[in-house]
Amino acid sequence: MTHPAPAQGPAVLSGWRARCYTIIFEADTRAGKAFDVALVVAVLLSVALVIAESVADWRLRHGRAFDIAEYFFTALFTVEYLLRVACVPQPWRYVRSFYGVVDLLAVLPTYLALFLPEAYALVDVRVLRLLRIFRIFKLSAYLHEFRSLGSALQASARKILVFLSVVIMAVLIMGTVMYVVEGPANGFVNIPTAMYWAVTTMTTVGFGDITPKTDLGRLIASAMMLLGWGVLAVPTGIVTAEMTAQRRSGTPTTRSCPQCLSEGHLAEARYCRDCGAPLPPYQRDAS
Amino acid sequence: MTHPAPAQGPAVLSGWRARCYTIIFEADTRAGKAFDVALVVAVLLSVALVIAESVADWRLRHGRAFDIAEYFFTALFTVEYLLRVACVPQPWRYVRSFYGVVDLLAVLPTYLALFLPEAYALVDVRVLRLLRIFRIFKLSAYLHEFRSLGSALQASARKILVFLSVVIMAVLIMGTVMYVVEGPANGFVNIPTAMYWAVTTMTTVGFGDITPKTDLGRLIASAMMLLGWGVLAVPTGIVTAEMTAQRRSGTPTTRSCPQCLSEGHLAEARYCRDCGAPLPPYQRDAS
Amino acid sequence: MTHPAPAQGPAVLSGWRARCYTIIFEADTRAGKAFDVALVVAVLLSVALVIAESVADWRLRHGRAFDIAEYFFTALFTVEYLLRVACVPQPWRYVRSFYGVVDLLAVLPTYLALFLPEAYALVDVRVLRLLRIFRIFKLSAYLHEFRSLGSALQASARKILVFLSVVIMAVLIMGTVMYVVEGPANGFVNIPTAMYWAVTTMTTVGFGDITPKTDLGRLIASAMMLLGWGVLAVPTGIVTAEMTAQRRSGTPTTRSCPQCLSEGHLAEARYCRDCGAPLPPYQRDAS
Amino acid sequence: MTHPAPAQGPAVLSGWRARCYTIIFEADTRAGKAFDVALVVAVLLSVALVIAESVADWRLRHGRAFDIAEYFFTALFTVEYLLRVACVPQPWRYVRSFYGVVDLLAVLPTYLALFLPEAYALVDVRVLRLLRIFRIFKLSAYLHEFRSLGSALQASARKILVFLSVVIMAVLIMGTVMYVVEGPANGFVNIPTAMYWAVTTMTTVGFGDITPKTDLGRLIASAMMLLGWGVLAVPTGIVTAEMTAQRRSGTPTTRSCPQCLSEGHLAEARYCRDCGAPLPPYQRDAS
Repeated sequence: MTHPAPAQGPAVLSGWRARCYTIIFEADTRAGKAFDVALVVAVLLSVALVIAESVADWRLRHGRAFDIAEYFFTALFTVEYLLRVACVPQPWRYVRSFYGVVDLLAVLPTYLALFLPEAYALVDVRVLRLLRIFRIFKLSAYLHEFRSLGSALQASARKILVFLSVVIMAVLIMGTVMYVVEGPANGFVNIPTAMYWAVTTMTTVGFGDITPKTDLGRLIASAMMLLGWGVLAVPTGIVTAEMTAQRRSGTPTTRSCPQCLSEGHLAEARYCRDCGAPLPPYQRDAS
Repeated sequence: MTHPAPAQGPAVLSGWRARCYTIIFEADTRAGKAFDVALVVAVLLSVALVIAESVADWRLRHGRAFDIAEYFFTALFTVEYLLRVACVPQPWRYVRSFYGVVDLLAVLPTYLALFLPEAYALVDVRVLRLLRIFRIFKLSAYLHEFRSLGSALQASARKILVFLSVVIMAVLIMGTVMYVVEGPANGFVNIPTAMYWAVTTMTTVGFGDITPKTDLGRLIASAMMLLGWGVLAVPTGIVTAEMTAQRRSGTPTTRSCPQCLSEGHLAEARYCRDCGAPLPPYQRDAS
Repeated sequence: MTHPAPAQGPAVLSGWRARCYTIIFEADTRAGKAFDVALVVAVLLSVALVIAESVADWRLRHGRAFDIAEYFFTALFTVEYLLRVACVPQPWRYVRSFYGVVDLLAVLPTYLALFLPEAYALVDVRVLRLLRIFRIFKLSAYLHEFRSLGSALQASARKILVFLSVVIMAVLIMGTVMYVVEGPANGFVNIPTAMYWAVTTMTTVGFGDITPKTDLGRLIASAMMLLGWGVLAVPTGIVTAEMTAQRRSGTPTTRSCPQCLSEGHLAEARYCRDCGAPLPPYQRDAS
Repeated sequence: MTHPAPAQGPAVLSGWRARCYTIIFEADTRAGKAFDVALVVAVLLSVALVIAESVADWRLRHGRAFDIAEYFFTALFTVEYLLRVACVPQPWRYVRSFYGVVDLLAVLPTYLALFLPEAYALVDVRVLRLLRIFRIFKLSAYLHEFRSLGSALQASARKILVFLSVVIMAVLIMGTVMYVVEGPANGFVNIPTAMYWAVTTMTTVGFGDITPKTDLGRLIASAMMLLGWGVLAVPTGIVTAEMTAQRRSGTPTTRSCPQCLSEGHLAEARYCRDCGAPLPPYQRDAS
């Protein structure tokens, strides 16, 4: 973190690009902070706009105002996107980064609606327009706490993936069994529908739009629910074990006694608990 | 915690206020205990009254008795509230405290119903009257165990807040996607409704008043449920990790260093982590 | 556990009572084991009978056979109950014990049906007859593993009780709020019904027989579900923390090194991990 | 694990059987890997086929193609099964092994459909055909990660079994009580149906196809849900405690005694727990 390369990057930029970079990508200066706050407000407003537009009453009454506001926000985010590309030292790297893609997705749908003016297509394009809601992901950049939660999930990602594949197999088999037992007459019209029901049941959501009607079907469903609960205790167990381990290892185990080399001292300890030698003061690095 | 000011506070009070304070705010004397028990009974009775009044049959038959009982309890709690304000050494501080606000909220709705006698408003005022149910919160003062549960939740409050913001983003995006995929024809009439459905689904409540009908919608809903389960294992993990940590740190605090009197040494420590003095061997008592 | 009183108890009994006691209350002799197995089979059969009788088709066709079987099992369990009372050294203590009460409850309903032969009462009596199903609780005597689960639940019983009281308060307040917001027109006909809905929602069961219809009601319900999930992570946290603690303390901490008095040695350790002295062989006591 | 017997097994085989064994049962050679990949693709395709065939539209339009593809896959898997039996050193052991049975089940249903050509039976046989979906279980052979999850579940299997038996008793009693309280008029037509409802409720699935209508029924259901949640926190607790313990014991196993080569020493141990020799100081590597 102390090598000077990243500092040099912006240093190569010409005057206005360097200033622009500081305002848009950093948040330490006054202007940079104001820009970030304005961006969050704009994102929230435009998301609120999309939500409000979906309500039939409001769309009928304020349709014109919604359109104008929509074009305004699209223009705003477009200018912002172009500025970002212009002032970043490595534009291509930014464009391909997660936030670069999200920034583009936030702008594209409205433009696509412009170039496809046919009546039918418009309905389709509305689908794309609503993807603009991904813009809200930018908000995450301002919350450093996402990281710690994310790392716990990431550390157990592989276990969860294996677990999910087992669950999907179980869903496939249970769905097929229920399709055979209950049949199309009781709402299990095909295997995909029966699998949707199996997911609904095993995750304990239980919508109730499709339910077993035969005695055998209900018996199988009951067994599924009871066993399914045990199986679905697994992701909770994975995540909890990960978090408990993070808590435990996070505080003490990085410290070692310089005299007896024992480890696992608490952050607040000042003397070794094994040999009584004084411990060097604990320096927690920022993370 | 050892400065004498709070002890002086009641001492300044005149005779009847001091006695009043002891009865109402403390529970060590016989009268104080009796008052507290009477208060709990009155709170439970008045809550039962509100519940009983909501049943149409009973309201028609015993409407008059309900009204009288309601006025009686309101008068009782009003007198009690005024006495509390009168005898407490720092009235303003009490009024702004959590219990001061709850005590006031327990009384206000009935009075508001008196001053707004119009037919229409009466219906609205009933809303306020029912807020009187908050009176029950007073009960919490008598249960010290709330604290330990509360502290575990408080310690993980920030993580839960971050988690909730992620969930709300997911709900926004999934709700929008389902609104686009299913559309108003299948019950997803607007984005707020679709978000309500997404919350219903991700929390595994699954009312079933709105359900996906199209194949694509069901596929997305299935993915949502499976992934949502993994995501919702997170708050369980947070709370469990916190509680496990509390238990673990709960054990060592019974050990104290004989030299510097510091507490909270681990069961396996042999030297004081604060002054380096040897610790007496740890004897865990049976429990 | 080593005082000789209980051993003397049966010793006082006359010949046939002592033999009877050994067969009925103990399971170490051949006859005792056979009796226990026969009892389990009889209990399971009579439970299956009650279940089968509830199916309308079978009751119509085999009603007479069901009645005879029912009287047979009642006679059997009555004789068994009387024998138990006759041969136990302290009959009154047995009658008031948990299993004594369960044994009586398993027999009573059928007799009550005999003495109240009126048509109408018969329907009512069927309620009591079905309580006979409690007979199955006897099965638990044969499963020692119930104990360890029970102790984990018992250890956290007080915390769970406090938690439940908080949940019931939340249910009361949320139910009232929803009754006011949604009103009888949308199915929230009175506060008890609204509280039933609140329980349904907060426990993530979500039957869907009553659902919010207004926008405000759905907003409140969504907040309830999200926060409710966090709150309901608490019992899981309590039980998990208890079980993790039981596991941890169960295996290692009861052993101590005779030389350096260090504790927390693993069950399979043979030398002290702190001073290297040999450890005495580990004897796990039965529990 | 070091005795040479398994290596000799294949060595006894004649030339083509040895080559065949290497290709089919092992995955280290190029041909073996290609075979395994082809097998996974074939399994996935044939499963997709069964799912697609269940959709009424597609079956009507492409019924003939589905039949041909179905016979092709059945032939393929039959040849593969016969080859496996032919080239494995101990054919009978393979046939009785889990994968042997799954391999056979994947092939049987289609053949059974051939020998029972009656109209009515065909419908029944379709049930068996769909069991072919078990073929997908073969996939598990390619994922070693299943093991660690499986061992955690296996270690807590007995506890989960005891827990399930308690839950089934609770379901039986609660179902009977609700059958008595609500009765056939409110959808609780018999005890098995009421038990199905109780499972639905206690696992928080809550389909809503059967719901309590009476006030007493709703009160009992509410108590059931609240207590049920506490009870169902138990399997989560069991699995989580198991996983936390696995993680904890997972860390120390990287340490080994330089003298007796025993493994699994705790991070804070300083002497070998098996031979008493001093352990080198533990150095945790960053991860």
